[in-house]
Amino acid sequence: MCYWDRFTWSSCYFHCTSDHSSRKAGLTAKEQLDPFVLIKDEVSEVTDRLRSMVVAEVPELTSAAGYFFRAGAEGKRTCPTVLLLMASAISMDIADGLENKPRARHMHLAEITEMIHIWSLIHDDVLDDADTRRGMDSLNFKVGKKLAVLAGNFLLFRAFSAAVSLDNTEVVSLLATAVNNLVTGELMQMSITPAQRCSMDYYLQKTYYKTAALISNSCKAIAVLAEQTTEVQALAYQYGRHLGIAYQLIDDILDFTGTSASLGKASLSDIHQGIVTAPILFAMEEFPELHEIVEQGFDDPLNVKTALKYLSKSQGIERTRSLAAEHAKLVAGAIDDLPDSEDQVVLNSRQALKDLTQKFMRRTK
Amino acid sequence: MCYWDRFTWSSCYFHCTSDHSSRKAGLTAKEQLDPFVLIKDEVSEVTDRLRSMVVAEVPELTSAAGYFFRAGAEGKRTCPTVLLLMASAISMDIADGLENKPRARHMHLAEITEMIHIWSLIHDDVLDDADTRRGMDSLNFKVGKKLAVLAGNFLLFRAFSAAVSLDNTEVVSLLATAVNNLVTGELMQMSITPAQRCSMDYYLQKTYYKTAALISNSCKAIAVLAEQTTEVQALAYQYGRHLGIAYQLIDDILDFTGTSASLGKASLSDIHQGIVTAPILFAMEEFPELHEIVEQGFDDPLNVKTALKYLSKSQGIERTRSLAAEHAKLVAGAIDDLPDSEDQVVLNSRQALKDLTQKFMRRTK
Repeated sequence: MCYWDRFTWSSCYFHCTSDHSSRKAGLTAKEQLDPFVLIKDEVSEVTDRLRSMVVAEVPELTSAAGYFFRAGAEGKRTCPTVLLLMASAISMDIADGLENKPRARHMHLAEITEMIHIWSLIHDDVLDDADTRRGMDSLNFKVGKKLAVLAGNFLLFRAFSAAVSLDNTEVVSLLATAVNNLVTGELMQMSITPAQRCSMDYYLQKTYYKTAALISNSCKAIAVLAEQTTEVQALAYQYGRHLGIAYQLIDDILDFTGTSASLGKASLSDIHQGIVTAPILFAMEEFPELHEIVEQGFDDPLNVKTALKYLSKSQGIERTRSLAAEHAKLVAGAIDDLPDSEDQVVLNSRQALKDLTQKFMRRTK
Repeated sequence: MCYWDRFTWSSCYFHCTSDHSSRKAGLTAKEQLDPFVLIKDEVSEVTDRLRSMVVAEVPELTSAAGYFFRAGAEGKRTCPTVLLLMASAISMDIADGLENKPRARHMHLAEITEMIHIWSLIHDDVLDDADTRRGMDSLNFKVGKKLAVLAGNFLLFRAFSAAVSLDNTEVVSLLATAVNNLVTGELMQMSITPAQRCSMDYYLQKTYYKTAALISNSCKAIAVLAEQTTEVQALAYQYGRHLGIAYQLIDDILDFTGTSASLGKASLSDIHQGIVTAPILFAMEEFPELHEIVEQGFDDPLNVKTALKYLSKSQGIERTRSLAAEHAKLVAGAIDDLPDSEDQVVLNSRQALKDLTQKFMRRTK
């Protein structure tokens, strides 16, 4: 249940230079067209600016709000990467850095989205009493729940203040919708009834809210800021929506099958927390007798054991993977439906967005 | 430390009719000019709409977010009252109800401000582990901390979505500043150092953030929405600023002297929570030996006893009351400096805003 946070760019098969100034000089012609090379410096800029954006009047707040933006703790920046690639993919006129106003606005949106993302991680960890995040102490574990709640609130309002300064009502509305969905998703998980726990529709709705709403609305906001047509806006939204759902479905599988980091040992953290995901829901369709177990919940370890037994006999994992593949196909379809372009950077960015999905599909951690 | 929440309109010396339709018919000429009569229906409308604005997809969230908007639990609505009076006080053309667009926008701002206010109460109660609020269970006591945090987040985002729909960047910025200040104020209280605990400047800054920032920025936003001059905007802001600080200073006194509800028995809740307020800070100026006690904090009951002894020997209460009176004078000054008007409703509204301050000054609960 880490959402967006398990993927590691270190296993990324795209070639990325480590020299931040690489865009200025010394790039090969191929690298100059490689969207990951092109956006690498910008993602670094986004990260640097995030650190300066969370400076508060009170040092404790600065330190807590910046906990996940410290060097070495800043994660993979999946959201900014996707958003800046999307900005390039829908642009007919690739801008170069902050001198170009539309590109600067897209970078601001990437910062805002990342702040909202980190806010949701911080508050989720508080609500879930989680001790760890990204392989280190969770913020609540590190500084206590109270300061973690406040740091989350602070981030959210830095995000909203920054959003307001974009001076685009529709973009602010899209972000507000995403935040509302994040809250609703967490609540849907927390207050779930036995009947809802057995419902695939409920699960998918919650998954959309918790994992896909932010990236889909932000992708759409990229298109809005680029003054693209409503068709392009809708395609950008669909890309983010299906990418987020596909990502989460694979995450759900890895919770049962184990990640490469856990050397094949399943963490089973979802089911131990009583959270029922797609593999179990599919298994239940094959074995209706599992229904009663799921309705009862998983406080009793015997129920966990029984559910896992049914899961192993079922096609639950395979069907979840197929569903993820369907969403991945829709991700690619959204990109393919974008208006034609002959700009090589645009085309490369589109390919990168599609490749990214496939990378998510194949990931093992 | 209840902020804005202790004042009761039931002791209000303005005459208010109980008939919601009173504005439509049957009002005496005097009543038609009484600003409290004029805004009573509107404050009721604001309250009604607040209930419908917090309907969420998940019933538990609707119920939690609407906890303080239920009939009988909706408090005194001080913020909407002040804001709607301010709207009338700076208007040269008093509008009548929602048919009039500017008035409708002012009412929306009143709703938004009230949602932010309630959000801050809910999150403060979570952070302070408070069991009660407004003489009933706090939301965290009623539904648990997790749901209370989520309900707060939800309210905040309903507020921001509504703010965005006002389509005025400056107003959204003012509200974002207020929320940022509320978070910073709570943090200043939480992470206070011994030296800061002894500082009047620190105390006044925190008081502004926690109690005055929302009403002052919202009063300014009223003027911005009314397309008033920057001078009027600044006066509206100053009104809210000094009103909030005066209110809190009196609140701090009542914590030591007892309220009419507690029949003269001091609750001493601030000092027992280790929160040092103006009376003690003034006492410390008279008796420097108190400095060491305040620096040590009040975990030791003996320190509480010693501090109270010094307070009773000092002019701490009187000087706090004088400081509150100075702020009350500045409140009145801000109103007196508004541009001349001959409209009786405008003049009555201005008088009501000044009288309200005096009422706050005299309150005993």
